[in-house]
Amino acid sequence: MLFMVEMDVNIPLDFDEQEAAKIKAAEKAYFQQLQKAGTWRHIWRKIGLYSNVSIFDVESNAALHDTLMALPLYPFMTMKITALCRHPSSIHDDDR
Amino acid sequence: MLFMVEMDVNIPLDFDEQEAAKIKAAEKAYFQQLQKAGTWRHIWRKIGLYSNVSIFDVESNAALHDTLMALPLYPFMTMKITALCRHPSSIHDDDR
Amino acid sequence: MLFMVEMDVNIPLDFDEQEAAKIKAAEKAYFQQLQKAGTWRHIWRKIGLYSNVSIFDVESNAALHDTLMALPLYPFMTMKITALCRHPSSIHDDDR
Amino acid sequence: MLFMVEMDVNIPLDFDEQEAAKIKAAEKAYFQQLQKAGTWRHIWRKIGLYSNVSIFDVESNAALHDTLMALPLYPFMTMKITALCRHPSSIHDDDR
Amino acid sequence: MLFMVEMDVNIPLDFDEQEAAKIKAAEKAYFQQLQKAGTWRHIWRKIGLYSNVSIFDVESNAALHDTLMALPLYPFMTMKITALCRHPSSIHDDDR
Amino acid sequence: MLFMVEMDVNIPLDFDEQEAAKIKAAEKAYFQQLQKAGTWRHIWRKIGLYSNVSIFDVESNAALHDTLMALPLYPFMTMKITALCRHPSSIHDDDR
Amino acid sequence: MLFMVEMDVNIPLDFDEQEAAKIKAAEKAYFQQLQKAGTWRHIWRKIGLYSNVSIFDVESNAALHDTLMALPLYPFMTMKITALCRHPSSIHDDDR
Amino acid sequence: MLFMVEMDVNIPLDFDEQEAAKIKAAEKAYFQQLQKAGTWRHIWRKIGLYSNVSIFDVESNAALHDTLMALPLYPFMTMKITALCRHPSSIHDDDR
Amino acid sequence: MLFMVEMDVNIPLDFDEQEAAKIKAAEKAYFQQLQKAGTWRHIWRKIGLYSNVSIFDVESNAALHDTLMALPLYPFMTMKITALCRHPSSIHDDDR
Amino acid sequence: MLFMVEMDVNIPLDFDEQEAAKIKAAEKAYFQQLQKAGTWRHIWRKIGLYSNVSIFDVESNAALHDTLMALPLYPFMTMKITALCRHPSSIHDDDR
Repeated sequence: MLFMVEMDVNIPLDFDEQEAAKIKAAEKAYFQQLQKAGTWRHIWRKIGLYSNVSIFDVESNAALHDTLMALPLYPFMTMKITALCRHPSSIHDDDR
Repeated sequence: MLFMVEMDVNIPLDFDEQEAAKIKAAEKAYFQQLQKAGTWRHIWRKIGLYSNVSIFDVESNAALHDTLMALPLYPFMTMKITALCRHPSSIHDDDR
Repeated sequence: MLFMVEMDVNIPLDFDEQEAAKIKAAEKAYFQQLQKAGTWRHIWRKIGLYSNVSIFDVESNAALHDTLMALPLYPFMTMKITALCRHPSSIHDDDR
Repeated sequence: MLFMVEMDVNIPLDFDEQEAAKIKAAEKAYFQQLQKAGTWRHIWRKIGLYSNVSIFDVESNAALHDTLMALPLYPFMTMKITALCRHPSSIHDDDR
Repeated sequence: MLFMVEMDVNIPLDFDEQEAAKIKAAEKAYFQQLQKAGTWRHIWRKIGLYSNVSIFDVESNAALHDTLMALPLYPFMTMKITALCRHPSSIHDDDR
Repeated sequence: MLFMVEMDVNIPLDFDEQEAAKIKAAEKAYFQQLQKAGTWRHIWRKIGLYSNVSIFDVESNAALHDTLMALPLYPFMTMKITALCRHPSSIHDDDR
Repeated sequence: MLFMVEMDVNIPLDFDEQEAAKIKAAEKAYFQQLQKAGTWRHIWRKIGLYSNVSIFDVESNAALHDTLMALPLYPFMTMKITALCRHPSSIHDDDR
Repeated sequence: MLFMVEMDVNIPLDFDEQEAAKIKAAEKAYFQQLQKAGTWRHIWRKIGLYSNVSIFDVESNAALHDTLMALPLYPFMTMKITALCRHPSSIHDDDR
Repeated sequence: MLFMVEMDVNIPLDFDEQEAAKIKAAEKAYFQQLQKAGTWRHIWRKIGLYSNVSIFDVESNAALHDTLMALPLYPFMTMKITALCRHPSSIHDDDR
Repeated sequence: MLFMVEMDVNIPLDFDEQEAAKIKAAEKAYFQQLQKAGTWRHIWRKIGLYSNVSIFDVESNAALHDTLMALPLYPFMTMKITALCRHPSSIHDDDR
């Protein structure tokens, strides 16, 4: 089941840099594990912003909630969630 | 080069139904031709709305403009365009 | 799987009254069938508005989309969809 | 008498963690007492957010005000209140 | 129980003038009946607008909904509802 | 001459509690003096919020400005001002 | 007593041109009569828009309401009203 | 050449009071010098707010920019700029 | 003196096509005359929209107003005006 | 390929002035290098604001992202990106 998740990251200017680097490394590791598992199906940067557009493929709303809440960068993020489904005209297997 | 395009379709209640059916059929044919060509890389429905989220892969801004303006449903659509690029953490070939 | 759907109904002032009455009757019948089936779990009026807040329980995003698109009043509605899940503190069986 | 209350929780990044844990425990206890009493009739998480949608059943506007103001997490919350009533088509006893 | 209701009236430019006059007369009669009954406790014009701020005193949310839906001008109005209660510092009997 | 004033109060989480209590006591005393004088004609709480809706009766715009600027809680408030006048249908002496 | 009034004029594309010319002539005559009387103290065009910023000097809120409602173009206007008063630093007699 | 400038002033609650008094005194002196020169043609307080509406008469866009940037209170202000010109119906010499 | 003008064009779906073609031809001729004169210094399409971003170089606010009001497509446009000036770091002669 | 980038700069009131001066000097040097290279094709100040409108000419979305992220002032900026292309009526070589 597909969802678009738009994430804006905002780390305060005076946040400890070493701590931030650790959190970002943990985020990257968790992200790649989810991408390999097919849960975090797509991610793209929004140009000029510290933001991304992502497509998640999950079994339920609750699974999506738990996955997002576990993101190491979650406390620094603003999220917008949009439920999606396959478009009837689509011929692309990946879009279901 | 990637762009997210969000399209909302709004056909007036009193628009001629046969004419609308013709335009939708032309839209579907044009869409599938673009999807086969790899230009309209992804499309998903937004749940409960007559709207979609699409990912386009084009050679230039101008190419995207010409492609969108040629949509048979264009006069009935409101569009929001967001320029995208590959996320540095991505391991997925399709997201570049 | 739970979703909140907020629906605003707006029938044009000059729309044929008999036609409107037919559509509303069809809407009510379809609504009650969905409520008996447990799909349209809750509905409440927003005070002073021709609007409601509803809770749907569906098997997937796509099932919700098909259900909403089939509403006889759909062409007259503006919709807002919010994906929900059970709250961890809840002790109420009905909220899962 | 029914109200929808939408609550967004925002605890500052640098707030003392032990203090926060105490407040959340008090919030949970108060919530469950209200849920048992039938006052806090429903609660659902909004996916991906530290927010909920709740349905309250109270005797008056003033009773709702006093109940919400007594929430241990109130100073960290933004609230939106919507007055509701039973929908005329509803066949579900719980929605009155 | 008190509610603030803000009403904006918008009658289309080409609406039949005699019909509009009839509806306004019915609105005025209904308004004065509600004001005498103490239900429509206050009304003020917003300067420069075809809008008012009103205070209603009703027994329940549902009573307010039925009262507003019965307004002859309702189909031409946009409404905003705000639930109110007595302020703890107030010394004015009328504000409870 | 009547004005609606909507006030939202926002005292920072880390503001000194004793100082806050003093300011609130001064606010209450000033409020009641204005209410007795007929200047602060009405006040109601907005349910679930630390906000009020008030009706002021003043001799001029400048008198209203001076009155509001003298509120002990003014530095913690966001204000919205709406100029009002008697509604032509009103039969209630208090609404002029 | 001073008010800023911002007026946006929007005459429908298909409105009768002769009728529009008559209304505009009546508006101009009424405007100049109010300007001579000192009621409509200032008016400026907003660049590129069919909109103006005006300063009114009136005896009361009700007087402003009656003046604006009598504008021949009123049915085609959207208005925003802001109550003003003399700035304490001003040395300009005209700004009181 | 005329511009409307709307200024909102927001000095943080914990800003040093003596420093604030100095800045305000400098602002007042600079304001009165500009008002005498005819550059800051009008200023009015918005009722209930720490905000003003001002009319500037300058030789060019750049001159306005330099004038505003030199305001001692500039770092504490949010500004909105609207380019104006004489209204064709105006009979008032001061509005050109 | 420089201004950014953002123009959105919206011709109704049922507007006469021949008439529209005439207006667009007149618009193009007027545009090119202004571009040759250096008044309409730049124009760019916004991708996917029937909108443009333009830079005007004019002698005064009033000259800009008259130029824009004379656009054949003006009645179908929504405009947003932003006053600009040379950036102090710029080394580009064209940006003054 | 052209993009409009609108940048708002917001340096906190209590940020170290020497540090700010260093960052601004680095920003200016980087800006002028990009302007000489033709990448940062235009820049203009918005009147009265610490904001600019810029036109970038880049080879791809990703190149724009990297360029913007490398701005020394980036952590203090809010950005809005709009993809542009040549207008079909334009006769100006610089606007392609």
